[in-house]
Amino acid sequence: VKRINEHETIRIILEAIGQPRVPYSMIGDDVALIPPRDGDLIAKVDMLVRKTDAPKGMATWQMARKSVVASVSDFAAKGVQPSAALLSLALPAGITRKEVQELGRGFRKARDEFGIQIVGGDTNESDDIVIDCCLLGFAEWITGRHGAAPGDRIVVSGPFGYPPVGLKILQDGVVVQESFREMAIASVLLPKPKLDLGIVMTTEGLLSSSIDSSDGLALSLHQLAESGEIGFNISKLPIEGRFAEFAEKSRLEIDEIVLYGGEEYEIVATIPEDKIKQANLMAERLGHHLIEIGSVTEEAGTVLFDDGIRRFQIEKRGWVHLG
Amino acid sequence: VKRINEHETIRIILEAIGQPRVPYSMIGDDVALIPPRDGDLIAKVDMLVRKTDAPKGMATWQMARKSVVASVSDFAAKGVQPSAALLSLALPAGITRKEVQELGRGFRKARDEFGIQIVGGDTNESDDIVIDCCLLGFAEWITGRHGAAPGDRIVVSGPFGYPPVGLKILQDGVVVQESFREMAIASVLLPKPKLDLGIVMTTEGLLSSSIDSSDGLALSLHQLAESGEIGFNISKLPIEGRFAEFAEKSRLEIDEIVLYGGEEYEIVATIPEDKIKQANLMAERLGHHLIEIGSVTEEAGTVLFDDGIRRFQIEKRGWVHLG
Repeated sequence: VKRINEHETIRIILEAIGQPRVPYSMIGDDVALIPPRDGDLIAKVDMLVRKTDAPKGMATWQMARKSVVASVSDFAAKGVQPSAALLSLALPAGITRKEVQELGRGFRKARDEFGIQIVGGDTNESDDIVIDCCLLGFAEWITGRHGAAPGDRIVVSGPFGYPPVGLKILQDGVVVQESFREMAIASVLLPKPKLDLGIVMTTEGLLSSSIDSSDGLALSLHQLAESGEIGFNISKLPIEGRFAEFAEKSRLEIDEIVLYGGEEYEIVATIPEDKIKQANLMAERLGHHLIEIGSVTEEAGTVLFDDGIRRFQIEKRGWVHLG
Repeated sequence: VKRINEHETIRIILEAIGQPRVPYSMIGDDVALIPPRDGDLIAKVDMLVRKTDAPKGMATWQMARKSVVASVSDFAAKGVQPSAALLSLALPAGITRKEVQELGRGFRKARDEFGIQIVGGDTNESDDIVIDCCLLGFAEWITGRHGAAPGDRIVVSGPFGYPPVGLKILQDGVVVQESFREMAIASVLLPKPKLDLGIVMTTEGLLSSSIDSSDGLALSLHQLAESGEIGFNISKLPIEGRFAEFAEKSRLEIDEIVLYGGEEYEIVATIPEDKIKQANLMAERLGHHLIEIGSVTEEAGTVLFDDGIRRFQIEKRGWVHLG
């Protein structure tokens, strides 16, 4: 296999992703120009290191897509449409042309899925693949981490649990039922942040606070409770009907997986009671489904589970990266 | 040595750099908010990998500072004041508290030197230290890579040659005179892009085109000539009087070092003849010194050296990273 140089790497990726639309600047100058919109500039960086962030069985294009998804998930939680991305890559000296093409394909997929222009980047050499995605957008309003009031309902944008099970299957070889296996693995390899839902709920002013959940549900709840100086009373775990059955048959601990697993890309948010109906309606219209998991209390920083049968403090710990 | 976790890493760095000024958002939410200014959003990412980008003898804080300098250099060439930076880090599991403090100190130094707010970032685990800096600013006008006309003068923002010699000393143990050695090493460990000069020259409309020179003078000239569809006639190498003497005594090849060496952080620009005087004046006022090295020709893409004694094509090749 012939080694490819930095110049060729850029050319191959550019072939895959193409140049951004006018009036975004062409890739190639020292800096990128991004047309402004109204509001503040919103920025997020997220770095993916293959060894610690790409599970076994993840294809190269899926890894590239995931490196963008991680930041998109934060934009979803804050309700902001991202405009542009810049991608810094460190690639091993021996990387093949085909692998670089696959990276380009993954970036293109993320670009098309989330309506982003890729406006620039940087390439480097390293022993492992490292991808840093800087995501940029503009917004006149974002949903912050504080703003929740006692009585607000706590919702999540979809069921939890599949990604941690998928990781157990891919990394540790855990064996589960075939239909469970498929859903769990897909949730890890092709995570789907609910960007449309996050934007609509923020634009319509439905959320009093929100956070991304990529470090796990428990940690997200704790961070949101601390920032908002309120507490949470969780009365239900956000799982689908089939999930409990699947998990039991596979002898998996549901609490552990749903609360402390990762990497989930759901929105965790609080919604004033009088807006819950509208929020549910909007979610259904977009083909999503909000799961209500509890309500906001006055006890600042306390995250309690209580479903009338079991009652325990949800611990402040979260998803620890692979490797 | 006790291992530190991601949470502690963030705390140590935050202690060193502090929170950004109001109305920039505090570090900690899912995304950063940056107040907009007039004009387009300008963005640049640059990734530093310790193994390939940090020469032997570079202190940890110098490496952290350099990771920001690389992007600042591009902003200098385009004439834009950067507003904010986001920093993604990958750090080895065994990194010490002291090393993380040093990283924070380097970031703070860069922040203060160039008037940047550090508004966010990400931390990860990797075998080598990787730092990706995303630099953001706003500008109503930047100096592009095209716009030069035949007859324009070619200038650089300072002397070339010291960084390549410094790298040879640090990496290969090349021995040179003591005073030469000091200047050469300092130029590598503490590179100083001329941000103030770049901004003033662009704001005053003095430059017809410009480019950053971190891949070496020859490559920058070729890229600028190609983008501008013009040629360059170089009549003088941008070196200081002492440099030639030093280099000869140390048996170093001046052409090779000045044209194809790296990593220089100077601005390479073209200036219409009637604006040269004003540009020189402005540079002197800021304590800098423009070096005129030739003039723009009609022969698109041709970069020729001709000082009346020697005449040769300057090759299109540049700085290759360490390791």
